[in-house]
Amino acid sequence: MRDQESRIRRHFLTGVLALLFLASASIVSAPVAAAGDDDEEHHERAVHEIIEKYNIEIKYDYIAMLMRLPNAYGEGAACVLCHNSTDPKRSPRGLDLSTCQGIKNGPTDEHTKDFIKPGNGKGSLIRRYLRNNRMPLGVRFDTPTDLPAIKLVKKWIDDGAKNDEVFRDKILPSFRSPTAYGGEQSCIECHMSNQEPPSFHELDLTSYTGLMLGADAIAKAKEGKPPVKVVIPGDSSASKIYQRLVENRMPAGISPSENRDHPNLTVLLRWVDQGAKCD
Amino acid sequence: MRDQESRIRRHFLTGVLALLFLASASIVSAPVAAAGDDDEEHHERAVHEIIEKYNIEIKYDYIAMLMRLPNAYGEGAACVLCHNSTDPKRSPRGLDLSTCQGIKNGPTDEHTKDFIKPGNGKGSLIRRYLRNNRMPLGVRFDTPTDLPAIKLVKKWIDDGAKNDEVFRDKILPSFRSPTAYGGEQSCIECHMSNQEPPSFHELDLTSYTGLMLGADAIAKAKEGKPPVKVVIPGDSSASKIYQRLVENRMPAGISPSENRDHPNLTVLLRWVDQGAKCD
Amino acid sequence: MRDQESRIRRHFLTGVLALLFLASASIVSAPVAAAGDDDEEHHERAVHEIIEKYNIEIKYDYIAMLMRLPNAYGEGAACVLCHNSTDPKRSPRGLDLSTCQGIKNGPTDEHTKDFIKPGNGKGSLIRRYLRNNRMPLGVRFDTPTDLPAIKLVKKWIDDGAKNDEVFRDKILPSFRSPTAYGGEQSCIECHMSNQEPPSFHELDLTSYTGLMLGADAIAKAKEGKPPVKVVIPGDSSASKIYQRLVENRMPAGISPSENRDHPNLTVLLRWVDQGAKCD
Repeated sequence: MRDQESRIRRHFLTGVLALLFLASASIVSAPVAAAGDDDEEHHERAVHEIIEKYNIEIKYDYIAMLMRLPNAYGEGAACVLCHNSTDPKRSPRGLDLSTCQGIKNGPTDEHTKDFIKPGNGKGSLIRRYLRNNRMPLGVRFDTPTDLPAIKLVKKWIDDGAKNDEVFRDKILPSFRSPTAYGGEQSCIECHMSNQEPPSFHELDLTSYTGLMLGADAIAKAKEGKPPVKVVIPGDSSASKIYQRLVENRMPAGISPSENRDHPNLTVLLRWVDQGAKCD
Repeated sequence: MRDQESRIRRHFLTGVLALLFLASASIVSAPVAAAGDDDEEHHERAVHEIIEKYNIEIKYDYIAMLMRLPNAYGEGAACVLCHNSTDPKRSPRGLDLSTCQGIKNGPTDEHTKDFIKPGNGKGSLIRRYLRNNRMPLGVRFDTPTDLPAIKLVKKWIDDGAKNDEVFRDKILPSFRSPTAYGGEQSCIECHMSNQEPPSFHELDLTSYTGLMLGADAIAKAKEGKPPVKVVIPGDSSASKIYQRLVENRMPAGISPSENRDHPNLTVLLRWVDQGAKCD
Repeated sequence: MRDQESRIRRHFLTGVLALLFLASASIVSAPVAAAGDDDEEHHERAVHEIIEKYNIEIKYDYIAMLMRLPNAYGEGAACVLCHNSTDPKRSPRGLDLSTCQGIKNGPTDEHTKDFIKPGNGKGSLIRRYLRNNRMPLGVRFDTPTDLPAIKLVKKWIDDGAKNDEVFRDKILPSFRSPTAYGGEQSCIECHMSNQEPPSFHELDLTSYTGLMLGADAIAKAKEGKPPVKVVIPGDSSASKIYQRLVENRMPAGISPSENRDHPNLTVLLRWVDQGAKCD
């Protein structure tokens, strides 16, 4: 009798666990379905097909709207809330996004050019700022950009990015540290080999060879292209690995889970592609 | 013993299925509850009661905003993103929604009038375009509007919509085909009798009689009105059945599950009802 | 045999109930997690830290946008939809939020001052109107503000708010009635002692002493401050308990569950703190 009862209990427990698994699976997928993922893709593609078919001109009038709209590029503040003056003391980077000329001029502090490259959305810095997540993923906006590990990476790159003692004894271990860059996970948790999956962007931060090979080696090879270099020896500011450690994605504090290819960003870049005209 | 165990198992299985049903029901309703359905209805009604009580004038200033706002009438692009020029080569239908006069003029290509009928929101084409889903439900935006079955319906209506061989051998079977109109379900899956439920809009597409009777026969009869004709013999463009097969709901690619009576559409139509004034 | 089966059944039922509880708990929490609660807090704080660090000037241009935007302060109509004229016959309270001067002037009917107090967002009435929920929670927007119980509270306060027969025989029982104030729950369901929890705002509406002590007595004492008076004898319009019974939170019909400290409200009040400048 006891045996049978315990068997039944075991059956029941298995059932309960199975149910909970099923229930949680449904729950996880439910909001996605509710948000109409496919529909969203559908309406985005539909609009962009029309824009291409008619070669529709994106007007500055519309860009002005996007700059003033809360949540325009994902959940976050409107651009002009903070970027509304060319005075770097009153507006971050002295970037004024409230006028067309202000957008085109970009930041007025010293260290930026090509914020907008008319005719070249992909090559414009505004794309990088609105799209690239600071690493490690989820690191807080107010995390200092001059953490010891970050400064070390910068100096090492500017000194020539050699496979030297600094790299082996300091840099490589920092890629393994969950906290060296201010976040809660190490670089190598996501970038551990030149294969994706499991390694994001086919980037291997476990060795000098992997780092210097760069990102997306296999994917780019299929297109007959070289890998994407992430270290430019001698030039930290041009090195993607350094950019990702110090540049917060805008708007401030936006969740890295927000769509990097937000339809409004696509529209903004199309306006740049079309010449970033102000009239 | 075995008998009892299998009985218990059966009980358990029934329990599991019941649970899954309950769980999925809760999950389906959960996002709705989370979105505050009742609250939404409450705030929409509250606003419209105020508008009526004070006979509040909807200003063009506000309409201009709605035309420039992404997701204004449900998840989708802002109207002016595409409709920003009267040149049909640069803007679909040559429809310019970025100016008040452009809205009032409507499409500048040949085949539209009454886009806006000042004083008559319900009779204005803009309502149809923002509200009516193309059929079959979920058909993609880029599905051609000159599919053989659609062209046949058009010709058959323009030829007088008779109960002839064409209707019996071609049209009627096409209503039964899941793919004839570019979607994934047949017309008669939803429109199979003159009773709702189960038939949407009390529309019966299984017979000539049903089709010619039209929609909402029972509901309209209660108001002392005739059914809504869906076929106007000789005039395909005035026939709702043809309109629904070729007119995409705007904005492009919007999900048919989006509220057809969006509060912003109600505001827009009220502006039309009030005379569609530009100052 | 029957005994065992019924025991198993009981086990099963307990399991089912436990499961349903777990499932519903997960469902309730799922949308919250999906909405990215932490991320939201993060991006709001990030933006306000920037605004403080740079002492960024909030421009009227931005406030104008917020007044025109649907859902700006939570799910609800745009402010200017209804408040677009200084004529109290055409716009509630004669409040025109479509111009900077109109915002600063506030309602033009007789009974409001300090709608905007330049330099003092917290002391400005606009904060109260956009933030305080009418009581009882969830009461409908169109509930009359001259219900017998509400009029009695008003008169009793204006007559000196004494611990008299009126209070004991009429007011106190009305606090216990679920329907006296037009809602579906009594005042004392949430305000039943001077301790929070369980009593919201440490407010005790079960006795004269509790009511006259006011709200947040313990919390304020920790800051060395007196409790927040909710009754000002002789002045019903200055008495919070009366305000909460007659003032609907804006926009009309907004759900009381919407964030009372909406980031856009914070921005609006900051603009007031900075002097509510129009240029």
